Amino acid sequence: MRRSVRRLGATPKVVALGGGHGLSASLAALRRITQDLTAVVTVADDGGSSGRLRDELGVLPPGDLRKALAALCGDDEWGRTWSKVIQHRFTSKGEMHGHAVGNLLIVALWEQLGDPVAALEWVGRLLGAHGRVLPMSAVPLELEAIVRGHDPERPDEVGTVRGQATVALTPGEVREVRLVPQDPPAVPQAVQAVLDADWVVLGPGSWFSSVIPHLLVPELAEALTQTRARRVLTLNLAPQPGETAGFSPQRHLEVLVRHAPKLTIDVVLADEAAVPDRDSLDRAAAGLGGTVELARVAAPDGPRHDPELLAAAYDRIFRMHGRIGPWR
Amino acid sequence: MRRSVRRLGATPKVVALGGGHGLSASLAALRRITQDLTAVVTVADDGGSSGRLRDELGVLPPGDLRKALAALCGDDEWGRTWSKVIQHRFTSKGEMHGHAVGNLLIVALWEQLGDPVAALEWVGRLLGAHGRVLPMSAVPLELEAIVRGHDPERPDEVGTVRGQATVALTPGEVREVRLVPQDPPAVPQAVQAVLDADWVVLGPGSWFSSVIPHLLVPELAEALTQTRARRVLTLNLAPQPGETAGFSPQRHLEVLVRHAPKLTIDVVLADEAAVPDRDSLDRAAAGLGGTVELARVAAPDGPRHDPELLAAAYDRIFRMHGRIGPWR
Repeated sequence: MRRSVRRLGATPKVVALGGGHGLSASLAALRRITQDLTAVVTVADDGGSSGRLRDELGVLPPGDLRKALAALCGDDEWGRTWSKVIQHRFTSKGEMHGHAVGNLLIVALWEQLGDPVAALEWVGRLLGAHGRVLPMSAVPLELEAIVRGHDPERPDEVGTVRGQATVALTPGEVREVRLVPQDPPAVPQAVQAVLDADWVVLGPGSWFSSVIPHLLVPELAEALTQTRARRVLTLNLAPQPGETAGFSPQRHLEVLVRHAPKLTIDVVLADEAAVPDRDSLDRAAAGLGGTVELARVAAPDGPRHDPELLAAAYDRIFRMHGRIGPWR
Repeated sequence: MRRSVRRLGATPKVVALGGGHGLSASLAALRRITQDLTAVVTVADDGGSSGRLRDELGVLPPGDLRKALAALCGDDEWGRTWSKVIQHRFTSKGEMHGHAVGNLLIVALWEQLGDPVAALEWVGRLLGAHGRVLPMSAVPLELEAIVRGHDPERPDEVGTVRGQATVALTPGEVREVRLVPQDPPAVPQAVQAVLDADWVVLGPGSWFSSVIPHLLVPELAEALTQTRARRVLTLNLAPQPGETAGFSPQRHLEVLVRHAPKLTIDVVLADEAAVPDRDSLDRAAAGLGGTVELARVAAPDGPRHDPELLAAAYDRIFRMHGRIGPWR
């Protein structure tokens, strides 16, 4: 199937937006069905190795970029070895504990080359990556959330919570997220990739801390509404303890559109086992201008997307709903 | 000249032993005149980034290995860029300050692959390195020196000083150095490289802390005496403040042979401006079974070897004194 698409010169241009494990799942699937793949990655992480490096060296948090690059690594021994190396974390009782080697390598390239996009291209070339990885902004960002009941002892109090790592784990109910600084500049190559795409994929991933932040970068939000690309939104397999505890699938759509009122979605992809109320989800999707596609995309062994199943679902969607391909 | 040597199938097999800047100078020269180059590197460093990593993670000190790899990097944009990246040092007020990225990369590969030699091959492939880099031992070593007057207030006291970084800077007179643990195992590939070589090059470099330690690894010392290779010893351009302050060229030979009484040397290479007393050096070289070759090998801009001049000197020596090549 992949070969026939290529023979027609019709490999779709795909841009996947997100961060963390959700984006890695997306990329591991999409790399199977397109030769033209760009990841646009959040840069608001403030936890772990990334958080320490941005604090100490004043750089973008590299962790989500590293994970995206690793998800795109070459299939040969070279790509797999370097992918393992950049994902390697030191374990000790000392200062290196918890640092991922790829984070250090990316930061070194940033400092050497002075260009965040070129540096990531070099790491991509090292890995033989099947696609490009771009930061959504060249400015390190902070995430700030309006949360009801962040302090469990005052469940009705609405307050501001700062920091992606803190937001992701809040026991309260996230109402809204913002970026600090507000209205950051987008990376121009990311905007252009969205405008030039055939398909834009949002989600899966931590909803408030990895999926929604892109919509808060004005030029990127504008590109997402202006692009001639079709937009697919992939829902999570389950609510995330902390930031989306208790959220229904349709609730995910509602909070997304609250952060980007002009955004339309063509297809909402969800696992069939994760949608208890199809009608409500259909209505929510229709409100965004789209339709729901259910598919079995969960791995048999746990709450994560299976790359093969997710790839098959995207492939079907791209062919049924796309502007290119044998079916349209 | 290089082409004609290759056409004859006679590129010499060269092994350079040392550490630090001295070995880098040697490799930068030798890579110009042979296609078959192996560096065998000390692993007794306990200072700086290397010292911190061996303390924290229990690994070999990677710094001298990194420098040797960088000296062998490919000439194209790929090799030069990755060489700059592995030599990059972080500067901050925090925990990453002073760490060289290549040290972290090498350590990550050691931890991932569990094989110090294979890990260095991977870094060599990353750099497109013109040669192999091997540790002299797979065991992290400590250097211990018998020093007279290490404490300037007791100039006649003879005592033991521990640690390469401390030995290198002692204001006292180094009498002898030892490795801890004593008689460490050699890396088998290093022994084999010495046995298979046409030429073995010792020096230049920090005499007690980079040049002599190889002679204290029994299997390596044995290989250096048994090999059919010719042996060239390259002297430093000046005594080194600290470990060899006030040493004459012939004194360098004397202390070397004191640590390896069975070692013979075929050629002693020295800069013509660094030999105030040719007769004494001739006699010392003859005592080791060799002859002195003087050449202009110092860079015009300071006390360092010029790679082109050093390469020309080695090339002449290899052709005049070697067992292969057009002149023998």
